[in-house]
Amino acid sequence: MSEFAFAENPNEALLAAFRRHGSGVAVITTVSPEGQPVGFTATSITSLGAKPPLVMFSVARGASSWDAISKASHVAVHTLGAKNLELAKRMAADHTQRFVGDDWKFGPESLPIFESATAIIVCKIREVINIEQNAVVIADVVNGSVGEEDNALLYYRRGYHSPGEALS
Amino acid sequence: MSEFAFAENPNEALLAAFRRHGSGVAVITTVSPEGQPVGFTATSITSLGAKPPLVMFSVARGASSWDAISKASHVAVHTLGAKNLELAKRMAADHTQRFVGDDWKFGPESLPIFESATAIIVCKIREVINIEQNAVVIADVVNGSVGEEDNALLYYRRGYHSPGEALS
Repeated sequence: MSEFAFAENPNEALLAAFRRHGSGVAVITTVSPEGQPVGFTATSITSLGAKPPLVMFSVARGASSWDAISKASHVAVHTLGAKNLELAKRMAADHTQRFVGDDWKFGPESLPIFESATAIIVCKIREVINIEQNAVVIADVVNGSVGEEDNALLYYRRGYHSPGEALS
Repeated sequence: MSEFAFAENPNEALLAAFRRHGSGVAVITTVSPEGQPVGFTATSITSLGAKPPLVMFSVARGASSWDAISKASHVAVHTLGAKNLELAKRMAADHTQRFVGDDWKFGPESLPIFESATAIIVCKIREVINIEQNAVVIADVVNGSVGEEDNALLYYRRGYHSPGEALS
């Protein structure tokens, strides 16, 4: 193949690399100090090991959910499947319309729960690390449950996909 | 659908959720203080915003690459495509066999570079945060380049996949 030329500016390099990268899609919810449901679609959720069970995710500190996340004790992380496409889109669009339907209810720790998710884990926030305009949230998994089996939902090339056949 | 039952133990809940979640696959490389190439397959790489351009990833502090990563100034993050399946497997297997081929060379900052990747970004480590048995690495993107176009490589259900058709 052609020689790599390390000459792009770092912003373009970052954007170009992540256009070629796929990510799993999740919805993260919490409750505001006033008791309002808050949440957003996230592609950054990652396991940080099972002993003890930890997850991390990032959130933009300019996002509509940031104020509630920064004050919250717990979050619910919902992994999404192909059947959750509409939910993924809604939770990434106008924040005033994210909880207008009847597809959620308050669950453990008063967290908003979408039962159509493929799995839900309830997490207690351990640490919030501010990095420039974003924050990295580290949270302990306290319990959870699985929902219906479905093919995973992915974000790739500015759209939603599911994984194709296994490669070998 | 059936009522969610929040009764699983947290370890099982975490593992069950991430079995239903897909992740993009990358290879992260660095060079040891002795000049040896070091690297591993990672599913945790995430963009942390473009202003300034930042990435984060996690690494197990028991991993073969940990000592070099903890001492490194820079890393190279390679996003992988379906054609990189063998590379992804090799960089997740026996660490003594990861650089035995001639498919890499030393590049910017003496970092080992696999030119078959779909994109490469060169990153300067800003912060390493130890969290239990893992570490979270925050790094500034300093430059990068794109390689050949290819369908992204994903890790899902304990195997490698590429994204299927776009959902709509």
